[in-house]
Amino acid sequence: MSDDNYYILDLDKLPAYLGELPSVVEALGLSAGFASDAITIDEIGDGNVNYVYRVTNASDASKQVIVKQAVPYFRLVGEAWPLSRDRMNYEIRALNLYNDIVPDLVPGVFHADEAMSTLIMECLSEHIILRIGMIDAITYPTAAEAIGKFMAETLFATSAWAMPSEARRDLMAQFVKNDELCKLTEEFIFTFPYMEHESNYSNPATDEWVRENIHTDSRYKLDVLGFKDLFVAKTDALLHGDLHTGSLMVNQDDTYVIDMEFAFFGPFGFDIGKIISNFLLACTAHYERAGGQEYREWILAQIPVIWNTFEQRFIELWDAAAESTMLTAGLLTPDEFATLKSEFMLDLLRESAGFCACSMARRTVGIAGVADVRDIEDPARRSELEVLNLRLSKHIMAERHTMSSIDDLVASVRSLYATINL
Amino acid sequence: MSDDNYYILDLDKLPAYLGELPSVVEALGLSAGFASDAITIDEIGDGNVNYVYRVTNASDASKQVIVKQAVPYFRLVGEAWPLSRDRMNYEIRALNLYNDIVPDLVPGVFHADEAMSTLIMECLSEHIILRIGMIDAITYPTAAEAIGKFMAETLFATSAWAMPSEARRDLMAQFVKNDELCKLTEEFIFTFPYMEHESNYSNPATDEWVRENIHTDSRYKLDVLGFKDLFVAKTDALLHGDLHTGSLMVNQDDTYVIDMEFAFFGPFGFDIGKIISNFLLACTAHYERAGGQEYREWILAQIPVIWNTFEQRFIELWDAAAESTMLTAGLLTPDEFATLKSEFMLDLLRESAGFCACSMARRTVGIAGVADVRDIEDPARRSELEVLNLRLSKHIMAERHTMSSIDDLVASVRSLYATINL
Repeated sequence: MSDDNYYILDLDKLPAYLGELPSVVEALGLSAGFASDAITIDEIGDGNVNYVYRVTNASDASKQVIVKQAVPYFRLVGEAWPLSRDRMNYEIRALNLYNDIVPDLVPGVFHADEAMSTLIMECLSEHIILRIGMIDAITYPTAAEAIGKFMAETLFATSAWAMPSEARRDLMAQFVKNDELCKLTEEFIFTFPYMEHESNYSNPATDEWVRENIHTDSRYKLDVLGFKDLFVAKTDALLHGDLHTGSLMVNQDDTYVIDMEFAFFGPFGFDIGKIISNFLLACTAHYERAGGQEYREWILAQIPVIWNTFEQRFIELWDAAAESTMLTAGLLTPDEFATLKSEFMLDLLRESAGFCACSMARRTVGIAGVADVRDIEDPARRSELEVLNLRLSKHIMAERHTMSSIDDLVASVRSLYATINL
Repeated sequence: MSDDNYYILDLDKLPAYLGELPSVVEALGLSAGFASDAITIDEIGDGNVNYVYRVTNASDASKQVIVKQAVPYFRLVGEAWPLSRDRMNYEIRALNLYNDIVPDLVPGVFHADEAMSTLIMECLSEHIILRIGMIDAITYPTAAEAIGKFMAETLFATSAWAMPSEARRDLMAQFVKNDELCKLTEEFIFTFPYMEHESNYSNPATDEWVRENIHTDSRYKLDVLGFKDLFVAKTDALLHGDLHTGSLMVNQDDTYVIDMEFAFFGPFGFDIGKIISNFLLACTAHYERAGGQEYREWILAQIPVIWNTFEQRFIELWDAAAESTMLTAGLLTPDEFATLKSEFMLDLLRESAGFCACSMARRTVGIAGVADVRDIEDPARRSELEVLNLRLSKHIMAERHTMSSIDDLVASVRSLYATINL
């Protein structure tokens, strides 16, 4: 990518840049070329990688936008850890596409600029990050359904079951080079947590359990490697690629999906497994946190809502689809199509369970933990929950072949929870 | 692609074009800007799609080159059937890469020009197309081993088991847009042969059998669709994409692989299954052709040579490989790595069998038959062989789950051959 037109938007440069963008000026309720004191700027950060600012009309706090810019390095680490700002291209492309597919479930885009690696979006000021809400044991009556719908709509629409062959390969070409972020996933989800590695998290009691029960479990490690192979080489659909509870903004009424810079073509089960694992990690945390059994039950009840909403909507879309890469009128009888859908959903449930298992382990042992558990201060107590999450990972991985429905997955989790005394 | 620098190389324009290319001039043993009567030009055709010329030094017949140019339509049909000449880019890229990986198994390249959609290659004047040799019941003592080696070297080298993550995605990006030729495969191998379609071949006795035994076999059709899904969405390695006996040039000493314009990232088993199916189609043909049982036995003996050479060489390369996308030192123990390789090869054998089954059917029922069978004049006799090949397709597809070795695949074929009386 040429750097000719790129510069970093610091606090001094931001007002002039925004003042030249008509759609942003309008969103802020200002006039073109507004003075720098017409807005207030708050740096709010995201996942440590990019600069993110909330920009507010200084005279009308209801007029706000979010400005996100990628710099050519990890923001938190600094220039010592270079990271191509190309990553913003993939977020821009994915968010634009998602605005076509599921406009009610993603922030609106006011301006996107690949040359500047900048994205200016709707500000979700009345929503909070779902992970934070779940740590505080808040229930969200519509979130699970929104998550299921988001995955059904986006995965179906970008798959070979919906798209014609050439359009699908054109779309793949727009994401195939998102290589740096794919490599992070390959290493930090599918490799390092299952071996001794300097990047891994450490907690003495957990470390010992991991050496005895993860590093020595050949079947489990080879199963993880099988899911790594799917992640690396299966291109079922455009994935969000990082769909955890930190990538969702919620309130009591609605849900928005954010942070799609990991977007790329991968296996259907990856997004599904990842979000389910994050619900389970939150569930385990409430053996310690204030939500207790009541909130754990609420979480476990959301998992079938996510899956069943996904399954039902995906099949509705499939039933309504015209010709696609995969299907041509006259190929299958209605009975054969019914069998296909049923076999597809069973395979996908088991694949999602496998990815869920990988995600449980990486979020426990790998560098990127979840605040749900990592923020528990007492290391011994934290280790009990970590070991429980690792046991869940192994249990789900081993039992996935026998699961025939999402209720089986939840039952499998419950059966393990029932053996412990926390 | 810009057309600015492109023109069709007819017989008048060819000498001047070649005379400006130093490497070609040298290969022809001529001087730059040679006169048009210094060479003789024969149009030799290829698979009907491109223009292919043999260019010979008029005073020294040992100095020859092959010139292949894509035109923006199907050559045989004419401008009424447009086909992007981008296809030559993929052949150029694949052939250049194969010259790095297996220089002894592909023609040397004198000049490649994506703007002109032109490739100028070594002339294999002492070799013939393997399919033609096999129709004439000629044995080739080194061909099967060369085929196995070609697949092992090219599939391994371009896979995530060999390449680092970013380099692999860069390579994928070079082939992801080979969409027109992928679409041909999707439709003509994995869709139309299993339904009523105007493009299909017709032979009355065969047609009736197909209606009763293919169109109504739900399990078989859904299995074929499963392999279509792998073809569409699995990106294990750079495939040749059209590796049949017509894409091989052989003599008693050596073997060359040609015509890689279908090259793209797909599942490991596709090339393997396709070449095995073409050996089986040739085998069946010798129930009628002159080779008889003796030649059939020779063919059946080559299939394990292909697979075993492939397997052995692939594993040698794997054992010698350094870090890759998939593997990192310290992740697996030697025993775990051994289990991985063994499970990988078993899965791949069964996947290859499935693709072999698809290829048997498409070459029998689909538009593109094989001369081995299609050129048999008596329609009734031809239909007997066609039905046999379709029965083989169904038999291999159904039995693939029980195959543990390539010998099981051959035994499965023999068991079906044993039931017939031809």
